[in-house]
Amino acid sequence: MPALEKLASQHCFGGLQERYRQRSEVLDCQMEYGVFLPPAAKHGPVPVLWWLSGLTCTDENFSQKAGAQRLAAELGLAIICPDTSPRGTDLPGEHDSYDLGSGAGFYINATQQPWSAHYRMYDYVTRELPQQVRSHLPIGEQQSVSGHSMGGHGALICTLKNPGMYQSVSAFAPICHPADCPWGVKAFTAYLGDNRNAWADWDASQLIRDAGERLPILVDQGGDDEFLAGQLNPGALEQACSAVHHPLDLRMREGYDHSYYFIASFIDDHLRHHARALGLGG
Amino acid sequence: MPALEKLASQHCFGGLQERYRQRSEVLDCQMEYGVFLPPAAKHGPVPVLWWLSGLTCTDENFSQKAGAQRLAAELGLAIICPDTSPRGTDLPGEHDSYDLGSGAGFYINATQQPWSAHYRMYDYVTRELPQQVRSHLPIGEQQSVSGHSMGGHGALICTLKNPGMYQSVSAFAPICHPADCPWGVKAFTAYLGDNRNAWADWDASQLIRDAGERLPILVDQGGDDEFLAGQLNPGALEQACSAVHHPLDLRMREGYDHSYYFIASFIDDHLRHHARALGLGG
Repeated sequence: MPALEKLASQHCFGGLQERYRQRSEVLDCQMEYGVFLPPAAKHGPVPVLWWLSGLTCTDENFSQKAGAQRLAAELGLAIICPDTSPRGTDLPGEHDSYDLGSGAGFYINATQQPWSAHYRMYDYVTRELPQQVRSHLPIGEQQSVSGHSMGGHGALICTLKNPGMYQSVSAFAPICHPADCPWGVKAFTAYLGDNRNAWADWDASQLIRDAGERLPILVDQGGDDEFLAGQLNPGALEQACSAVHHPLDLRMREGYDHSYYFIASFIDDHLRHHARALGLGG
Repeated sequence: MPALEKLASQHCFGGLQERYRQRSEVLDCQMEYGVFLPPAAKHGPVPVLWWLSGLTCTDENFSQKAGAQRLAAELGLAIICPDTSPRGTDLPGEHDSYDLGSGAGFYINATQQPWSAHYRMYDYVTRELPQQVRSHLPIGEQQSVSGHSMGGHGALICTLKNPGMYQSVSAFAPICHPADCPWGVKAFTAYLGDNRNAWADWDASQLIRDAGERLPILVDQGGDDEFLAGQLNPGALEQACSAVHHPLDLRMREGYDHSYYFIASFIDDHLRHHARALGLGG
């Protein structure tokens, strides 16, 4: 296991908000991640909610802005926030735009040069990082996943591609059908190539049809989200779920936008959703 | 009244998180401020909590990081966050250090050149800004004040210098005795000059003695705050209060530092303290 560096450990709601730096083998670079440990973690392993952030974010945005620690502390739920892309690499064009390369890993495994040498965020968040954290933190096997925008897409595909791996899933304003929106088409073309058949494996609205389990999906979506019409397309997810009777609770929130003020307003609902599935009685 | 520019209005916990830009006459510059309006503000004026931020902050830190809107929405309490200094001016040395000039107004009225032309944050937060916001927002006359570090000092002196003006006061890790710590000595020397007699008017631990009312003070202080020994000196406030029987509830919080994770952990206690004084039944 690569060497571990603790960057910060701060008291928060009786628990600890921590940051770590550790080398990722699958991404071939140093990565940082944030961890909230509830007070219950002092006494033994606790269940974990993986939070996948959106475009331009790092591991820090959610920890600083979502206000999730209060209820997570009460519920006894750890929260781990991975970063949104490999870091410290300098691939051609990697830092040129906010929606491709650094800060925009899309939680998929790239197959195209030059990205494929590093951009394997799917393997990182579903396999490597869970192993890493369980080797040094009191994190149990029970886990759930949520995320925002690009990270909402990430949460959906992680569960749809791994039946039984997560106890529950939710998303805030997810990119529901990346194969058919500008952000997704740009990223998938670069990371996966022009052959759109390869894209279906990374698109929630297409994965739904043959999903190996019917894990209920909770989605909150702001009605005044500036990316709703052009990028997010919850209608595609709704239609896909409806066609195969996949349970979906899609909540349209009138007036809310795409920001962390929106996430903070409804994060408690999501934490309770996950806590119930994780047996925490939320 | 100077022209008002609304920079943002975002739904948050059923209320609105807004930002405004408006010219300040007393500071002779454009200023920005943040406002949280709870759902109850749709039906009429609501009481307000003034939040004064610390060194290096703007009007945005508290709104984004403290997680105060959830309970403020429930209580029916507005929160207004002024900026921490005049902006857009370019006085000699104004932007050279984090603890003097921009981001470091100390909520006092400067008497020394070149600062006195702009650095009158005390008049701004106690007189001008309250007038401005009440002319365009549903903010009632009932008000309380709180703040962090430099802003905790600000909250204390605003109440101590204005008997009857605020219904309650609290502070997180306040600079309790600025006349006797490096941050305060540097700022007071620049803004007020070398004559230390003039400093007593802006130092909570000295103002306590002759305070015109004995408004109870609530203070939370992290036990592992990196500035506790060198800058904050809650012992001086404790001693001053004790000497004149000024009610002080000083809570030492073991393990907590100076960050917003500390503030977020205890902000609900402070909101309830203010809500009770404001008749909101918190």
